Amino acid sequence: MEFDTIAAISTPMGEGAIAIVRLSGDDAIRIASQLFRGIHGKKLTEVVSHTIHYGHLVDPKDGQVVEEVMVSVMKGPKTFTKEDVVEINCHGGIVSVNRVLKHVLKNGARLAEPGEFTKRAFLNGRIDLSQAEAVMDLIRAKTDRAMNLALGQMEGRLSKLIRKLRQEILEILAHVEVNIDYPEYDDVEEMTHKMLKEKASYVREEIEKLLQTSEQGKILREGLSTVIIGRPNVGKSSLLNSLVHENKAIVTDIPGTTRDVIEEYVNVRGVPLKLVDTAGIRETEDIVERIGVERSRQVLKEADLILLVLNYADQLTAEDENLFKAVEGMDVIVIINKTDLPQQIDLERVKDLAGEHRMVTTSLLEDRGVDELEDAISALFFAGAIEAGDQTYVSNSRHIALLSQSLQAIEEALDGVEMGTPIDIVQIDLTRTWELLGEIIGDSVHESLIDQLFSQFCLGK
Amino acid sequence: MEFDTIAAISTPMGEGAIAIVRLSGDDAIRIASQLFRGIHGKKLTEVVSHTIHYGHLVDPKDGQVVEEVMVSVMKGPKTFTKEDVVEINCHGGIVSVNRVLKHVLKNGARLAEPGEFTKRAFLNGRIDLSQAEAVMDLIRAKTDRAMNLALGQMEGRLSKLIRKLRQEILEILAHVEVNIDYPEYDDVEEMTHKMLKEKASYVREEIEKLLQTSEQGKILREGLSTVIIGRPNVGKSSLLNSLVHENKAIVTDIPGTTRDVIEEYVNVRGVPLKLVDTAGIRETEDIVERIGVERSRQVLKEADLILLVLNYADQLTAEDENLFKAVEGMDVIVIINKTDLPQQIDLERVKDLAGEHRMVTTSLLEDRGVDELEDAISALFFAGAIEAGDQTYVSNSRHIALLSQSLQAIEEALDGVEMGTPIDIVQIDLTRTWELLGEIIGDSVHESLIDQLFSQFCLGK
Repeated sequence: MEFDTIAAISTPMGEGAIAIVRLSGDDAIRIASQLFRGIHGKKLTEVVSHTIHYGHLVDPKDGQVVEEVMVSVMKGPKTFTKEDVVEINCHGGIVSVNRVLKHVLKNGARLAEPGEFTKRAFLNGRIDLSQAEAVMDLIRAKTDRAMNLALGQMEGRLSKLIRKLRQEILEILAHVEVNIDYPEYDDVEEMTHKMLKEKASYVREEIEKLLQTSEQGKILREGLSTVIIGRPNVGKSSLLNSLVHENKAIVTDIPGTTRDVIEEYVNVRGVPLKLVDTAGIRETEDIVERIGVERSRQVLKEADLILLVLNYADQLTAEDENLFKAVEGMDVIVIINKTDLPQQIDLERVKDLAGEHRMVTTSLLEDRGVDELEDAISALFFAGAIEAGDQTYVSNSRHIALLSQSLQAIEEALDGVEMGTPIDIVQIDLTRTWELLGEIIGDSVHESLIDQLFSQFCLGK
Repeated sequence: MEFDTIAAISTPMGEGAIAIVRLSGDDAIRIASQLFRGIHGKKLTEVVSHTIHYGHLVDPKDGQVVEEVMVSVMKGPKTFTKEDVVEINCHGGIVSVNRVLKHVLKNGARLAEPGEFTKRAFLNGRIDLSQAEAVMDLIRAKTDRAMNLALGQMEGRLSKLIRKLRQEILEILAHVEVNIDYPEYDDVEEMTHKMLKEKASYVREEIEKLLQTSEQGKILREGLSTVIIGRPNVGKSSLLNSLVHENKAIVTDIPGTTRDVIEEYVNVRGVPLKLVDTAGIRETEDIVERIGVERSRQVLKEADLILLVLNYADQLTAEDENLFKAVEGMDVIVIINKTDLPQQIDLERVKDLAGEHRMVTTSLLEDRGVDELEDAISALFFAGAIEAGDQTYVSNSRHIALLSQSLQAIEEALDGVEMGTPIDIVQIDLTRTWELLGEIIGDSVHESLIDQLFSQFCLGK
């Protein structure tokens, strides 16, 4: 395929030592060469692929130096996009990298859309759709486990499995075809039925297995949306601080927008906890009051995990009891804090209220009980041991939805076989299963879906 | 010189397409090679300098894939540090880049201190101290002008001038030496005096010229600390938004710390305005009340520029008059906002209160007057036209202090000549001038100062 030449800043925005402006397309090298002034007057159009060149970026209009740069020239097809790729390493300042980008755009490149580099890698056939999606998952990974998941998917582990299942279905379909074309042979029909049941059952089982990994896969990929609630002064912000302190928070900032969008993640035993409205807790020690009753109910409803904090050194209040009501039916861990002080709380009553929920006692002041709390969180979501070993996890909502639909389709095919449905009807269900699985790896997807998928990527990828 | 091998993340922290872990030192290539598994089994220790290699980083212990990477190998001395440098480009995720760093450190590299790469470039003699300082200025530059300033300094423009002045002083000192060694020759003394006066005057003038650029240089480098004040509801947050909207704010976040440290800059006609406590304005529309009287006085005192907003459609209040008192003697621009509404304000009284201060009328609602405001800001600080042409600007506080001291020393030398002070006393002042100028480019500085300077750098540079 042939595309125009795109460019974007490919490193995170902010101040750092180095930033990269990346170009991809037929004109990438020519555009960079036009701007580049190397020390020995070497032209980038004449250099060997996969080499690095020191020099200055110069405005061809007035000869003014734009930046001091290191330029990497990589000729397709052995590149990320399979096209010619140039990476301009400049100083990692906001002004400098934008200035480099500006000159690249002025000289013939077009600003890349989010995800457009990866989209080209996909459209040019270097990777399939699930691998492309894994690229973004890898970048957004909040824990080692999540990253291993994404790495595996990027290397094609899921794709391989999906391809294998599709191959099985193709083989069944071939037999079905024979059966339809030569209905006069009885033994063909019999064979087809037997083989169809066997193979289709195998496909069903494999899809079921994959779907079983999806709940944990999704948590590893997206993190557990976690809300800390409790009356004022029970130690919510201490809890927050000790989780952050022990695990080093990852703060995700989306540059250029207001500070409200900052998300804070902590890594608890490999489980990424996404802490909701931590600013609220830090500033006012009272999330529920701060965000208002309506809004707070919404926040609670969307949470995957509630950490409900009580005061060991105070009696239970009506407010505490109301909190239990508010989180009914949710995943809750009850934390009884301040065990360094004399007990005032009625533990029996707490046990009644907690019911099935886990309870942990802590003294955050004295740094006691945090380990137990982390164990409880990990146990709640990863009852079975989870290790990033050979298991293939499904973590992407789109994949999960497609797998569920494929499961349904293959079950319908199996039901049809069972009930003696005409074989050409069964064929339709099988074909649908094959197509749905194909959508996961991008073999049969609409252009609009592809556009939408890649638009969720970050810029420069 | 010989150093151990250091490594650090050299791209800004955050999510992006690409991140870089950089290594520098004798073992850089060996360490990277140990972890690297290329597609053709190629070893990095065997590759040509300034080439790029695709492959995987693999944990040598268990063979587990750590990341998919592109590795750039650059052999000294043609590198940033003059040492062997390896840059590992990995996915720009927080987990992935930290994982790569972790493995590099586990296999023999030491985590670099902030600024240590640039420090090595200095210690290994590739750049002098003022050039090294310019590297950081370039990264932190908030406007094009600031960046041009830094680029010029990085390319050695200031260094060249300083070296020239030092050379002049050396020549005087040589003559003085002759004078001291052969006092019996009368004409030598006469010549020395004449030449000394001439040359020393020239040096003094050049230092004075440089110092004259320092005020504007400092503003370009550090930005104008700007505070918006005014009663509630006069349009402070509208003003903030329109400044940000017209100029695109640069938000500087220091990762890993709380959101309180975020600084917001807008670029007004090349002048970087550092907006103080914009969160306060956005959230409460009342900075003065929010931060308390004591604290707010402090904020005002530290500001370089006050934007005092009044309401055109309301009468002046005692509060307004108090604001004028609070900012007496400071650089103030008075903004009379809401000219879209009927006038209620007593403009004569405002003029009285404003005195020498510039006044601008705006209707931020109707987007009128913002241009005039920006003109006023620019005019206030750059009365003379400032262009990043051939002029060498001094912008660094350390340089300014050293130049002031050198000026004093050379003046003392000149006074001495004038007053007939013995030549060996004059010699002391001349030598001091020479040393002080040397400190700017790092020719005569203490190790502890160097450590302190580079520690202000960002990590990975």
